[in-house]
Amino acid sequence: MVSLKDQVGVIGLGQMGGRMADNLRKNGYNLVVCDSDPVNVHKQVDQGAVAAVNAREVAEQCNTIITMLPSTAIVEGVYLGENGVHEALRSDHLLLDSSTIDPIFTKRLSKELHDRGATFVDAPVSGGVAGAQNGTLTFMVGGEVEEFERVKPLLAAMGKNLVHCGGSSTGQIAKLCNNLALAIQMASIAEAVNLGTTLGIDAKILKNIMDTSTASCWSSLVNHPYPGLMENVPSSNNYEGGFAVALHRKDLGLAMDCAKQAEVSVPLTCQVHQLFNMMVAGGYGKKDFSYLLPYLKNGK
Amino acid sequence: MVSLKDQVGVIGLGQMGGRMADNLRKNGYNLVVCDSDPVNVHKQVDQGAVAAVNAREVAEQCNTIITMLPSTAIVEGVYLGENGVHEALRSDHLLLDSSTIDPIFTKRLSKELHDRGATFVDAPVSGGVAGAQNGTLTFMVGGEVEEFERVKPLLAAMGKNLVHCGGSSTGQIAKLCNNLALAIQMASIAEAVNLGTTLGIDAKILKNIMDTSTASCWSSLVNHPYPGLMENVPSSNNYEGGFAVALHRKDLGLAMDCAKQAEVSVPLTCQVHQLFNMMVAGGYGKKDFSYLLPYLKNGK
Amino acid sequence: MVSLKDQVGVIGLGQMGGRMADNLRKNGYNLVVCDSDPVNVHKQVDQGAVAAVNAREVAEQCNTIITMLPSTAIVEGVYLGENGVHEALRSDHLLLDSSTIDPIFTKRLSKELHDRGATFVDAPVSGGVAGAQNGTLTFMVGGEVEEFERVKPLLAAMGKNLVHCGGSSTGQIAKLCNNLALAIQMASIAEAVNLGTTLGIDAKILKNIMDTSTASCWSSLVNHPYPGLMENVPSSNNYEGGFAVALHRKDLGLAMDCAKQAEVSVPLTCQVHQLFNMMVAGGYGKKDFSYLLPYLKNGK
Amino acid sequence: MVSLKDQVGVIGLGQMGGRMADNLRKNGYNLVVCDSDPVNVHKQVDQGAVAAVNAREVAEQCNTIITMLPSTAIVEGVYLGENGVHEALRSDHLLLDSSTIDPIFTKRLSKELHDRGATFVDAPVSGGVAGAQNGTLTFMVGGEVEEFERVKPLLAAMGKNLVHCGGSSTGQIAKLCNNLALAIQMASIAEAVNLGTTLGIDAKILKNIMDTSTASCWSSLVNHPYPGLMENVPSSNNYEGGFAVALHRKDLGLAMDCAKQAEVSVPLTCQVHQLFNMMVAGGYGKKDFSYLLPYLKNGK
Repeated sequence: MVSLKDQVGVIGLGQMGGRMADNLRKNGYNLVVCDSDPVNVHKQVDQGAVAAVNAREVAEQCNTIITMLPSTAIVEGVYLGENGVHEALRSDHLLLDSSTIDPIFTKRLSKELHDRGATFVDAPVSGGVAGAQNGTLTFMVGGEVEEFERVKPLLAAMGKNLVHCGGSSTGQIAKLCNNLALAIQMASIAEAVNLGTTLGIDAKILKNIMDTSTASCWSSLVNHPYPGLMENVPSSNNYEGGFAVALHRKDLGLAMDCAKQAEVSVPLTCQVHQLFNMMVAGGYGKKDFSYLLPYLKNGK
Repeated sequence: MVSLKDQVGVIGLGQMGGRMADNLRKNGYNLVVCDSDPVNVHKQVDQGAVAAVNAREVAEQCNTIITMLPSTAIVEGVYLGENGVHEALRSDHLLLDSSTIDPIFTKRLSKELHDRGATFVDAPVSGGVAGAQNGTLTFMVGGEVEEFERVKPLLAAMGKNLVHCGGSSTGQIAKLCNNLALAIQMASIAEAVNLGTTLGIDAKILKNIMDTSTASCWSSLVNHPYPGLMENVPSSNNYEGGFAVALHRKDLGLAMDCAKQAEVSVPLTCQVHQLFNMMVAGGYGKKDFSYLLPYLKNGK
Repeated sequence: MVSLKDQVGVIGLGQMGGRMADNLRKNGYNLVVCDSDPVNVHKQVDQGAVAAVNAREVAEQCNTIITMLPSTAIVEGVYLGENGVHEALRSDHLLLDSSTIDPIFTKRLSKELHDRGATFVDAPVSGGVAGAQNGTLTFMVGGEVEEFERVKPLLAAMGKNLVHCGGSSTGQIAKLCNNLALAIQMASIAEAVNLGTTLGIDAKILKNIMDTSTASCWSSLVNHPYPGLMENVPSSNNYEGGFAVALHRKDLGLAMDCAKQAEVSVPLTCQVHQLFNMMVAGGYGKKDFSYLLPYLKNGK
Repeated sequence: MVSLKDQVGVIGLGQMGGRMADNLRKNGYNLVVCDSDPVNVHKQVDQGAVAAVNAREVAEQCNTIITMLPSTAIVEGVYLGENGVHEALRSDHLLLDSSTIDPIFTKRLSKELHDRGATFVDAPVSGGVAGAQNGTLTFMVGGEVEEFERVKPLLAAMGKNLVHCGGSSTGQIAKLCNNLALAIQMASIAEAVNLGTTLGIDAKILKNIMDTSTASCWSSLVNHPYPGLMENVPSSNNYEGGFAVALHRKDLGLAMDCAKQAEVSVPLTCQVHQLFNMMVAGGYGKKDFSYLLPYLKNGK
């Protein structure tokens, strides 16, 4: 008979969570799963997972649980709401939240769960759906050193880079900070390239100069927004794939929420958030965020 | 007797031009110099340079002339104004402008000089006063391939990296595009670090994560704005040295002028320009541009 | 003996709520009060009010209750939390919330209370502490027409202008929309005056022109930010009094939250919010929001 | 024979200048005209005007000259260029420039002309093509009091409101300051209305509240951007007519130029300028500037 120890609960089986569950199964874990969408649950059950009715039931059946959910409110419900994890919480519970959510809530949740004796780390990811599929995600982990060591084997089944960011909530913080800087840097390249090419410099030459100069950054080096300069980037593929504007907007929104609460000024983050918002309104929410270049160029 | 061929004219002997002249002299060039400030002229004459009264006189005495001047208007005066280069223009003239100015004017100037048979390239620099002193400047050169080849030996006396950016004015364009992206990227790091550290992540850890992730950029890797993380950067030296806010503001202003004329939208460039403007008003014009971090943090 | 009918509950006795309670008492209402700060409670008890331990107790003792609280979370706690109003809710309850909070939450709260048979309107105010003191507040009321008629007599004891804004939550919406536009308009005047006077036009002449032209607005007509042009405005009194930057920032923050949730683009609201945030960081949070003029001028 | 005294020169016969010339003629003035477009000249000649070949010739034949031109550079050419007014300048010349141009250039031009004994005032207009047609323009005049008195009769033939703004260039300054504030205020209304109506308040009710509150301004009172609330405004007529985005953008651009030169921070002016720029790129340059509301709403 399978003991609690061998089972891993997965709550949230969407685009990301479903693929992460697949990789856990491939690595020999027995899964107990739960999702608001029965279709997602059935897919996992077909592969041998056990379905649970709600988060509490998952917590009853597993010591180790991973959550991968779309919003702070839903994470709150799953952990602290009716039929939530907290109703079955035990001190041998090892809980990981890989959702990207408000770090200020994460800190509060972590305190509450730790106060009741459980172990909890925040472990948001980067790498997107492809990384989830291929098991090459980066996990940014917030928790004590020993907690980080404890979750490593599990995370290794789903990801390649496991980064310890510091104490509780620092995984979330690192992810949001990185992503707000990323959005702004993409804008920096979009504006430079748009201006430069309009004035008459060749896009490839400008890229080469900037890539070896003080404006060198990932958004130019690896994900350049000008079509045709690089292979296998969204800009060369009609801005399909990559990091969708609507998803990036969500992270910027979380960063703005935190900044507001912490009274930190983030003027460019706000401006890019607004531009992304306009892009979503314009119908470009599913495009890669490098779509900012044509959007600025065409005004629509 | 020294022939025209052996002499190089240098017009503009300020912080940058004076040091560039020094390096030309060290490399065996005989100089004919001109500057609106007699003190600057005397320094060069003491080292063996010949003083000319105005730009025309320089043009009469030299086939090769380098200009290093503070504004578009002054460049226009020196080339096209009363007693300017144009009054003595010959088809064997080789003219280089290393000033950072409006590329749209550069294009017009280049056309005018070429129409009269002379050779002209734009060759703005990066590397600052230290680069000028040590002969390690980067030159971004706009002109025909054969023009670039022709100016290479001269530039090699003053710089290390000689980059051909394309046809006329592309040197200026490359410099402005690089510098606008640079300013925005510094803002991206300042906002991320300000938010992250306020929320509780360690600045060094955040830097490490971002430097190996999608928000990797020069402003974090090489010139991080958080004090104490790196040695020998302005932020660790009370934001002294480096690229002064007031100078960076000038480049952003030129970029905005071009963008306006070319009808290109550069919203973040504008916003950073305004922040730099406020910083200058606040008395921080001489600080390195990484001072944006404490400025955003303290609101003053 | 005093019946439920004659008593009014007041929850929240801060700068605004305390003065509103005073005016209710002056108009003959018997008060049952509650506040997290005992000092505030004692002041009211000294004037004859009855103290209640919590919101539930207020609800038990009064049919009519006014809440005036500093944040959405606190309003939620008072109405729906432990020992909250909802624990003693009756269908003859008439509940008014004069706090300025998230309209999206207001809508939800209103539905929940109405579903249980009670009457609830949102009735945020403008007019500040002086208006609360003098009973000259403007109330922006969201609720059905008959609800508006029902609360009118009570509001008339505390305010002068009673505006029906439409159905539930529209009072909050109207206030936020007005205040975001107000902040942006003050910025419009600050920028115009700063630029105009620096270029050499007399501030008074510029005001006269703009006040009779297409840039006419309240922030110039009634609360001009340039010192000395008008009597009895904050700018002529070292920017003391008026609408504090920190309070205005709170309203802008609520507007941004709603905008984010409703996916509405509000780029200038965001930018002013950031400027206000920088002003608070700079130590100007208690100044009137017209302090934006010297802040932009001095960069600190 | 007609003396110099009776003739008025009009240089620039476009949409505005042509109609202003018509009104001068109707008021009994004999015109000497000049324009780069022969079609514009012929229209005036057909009505009895005398054509001049260039600005110098106009200056030879008229003591009084009005210029109405599209850019600073063209104004400079007409007054100071080859075959310009300056070549025939006399001390009895009375020169008026009604173009909207860079006030810093205006100041310089005024000084140059005054130094040579002539009289010059800047007199930009508001009121648009309809105002030019109907002779109801507002003139904002920069010059000495006695100069203002001297030009009044002439301006009265073309306009209704004659405003003395102070010394030289203050007419230009007043216009730019007014128009930058106007653009920002329209944005304030657009954002408020967009947010409010999306959250559920009726546009008409919101307008009524704001129009009687602290966010009251011309852009809501007289030119509201929400379609259908007012008759005879562009927003109720598919945003046709009114103040075209592209023209308004020009004024914002001039304001930004001045602000840059005067080192004044105008962050919201810049942001609105960028939004207008994006709107022009999107193909909405000819729409009234209240088109900002649908542009923000639709992201295109």
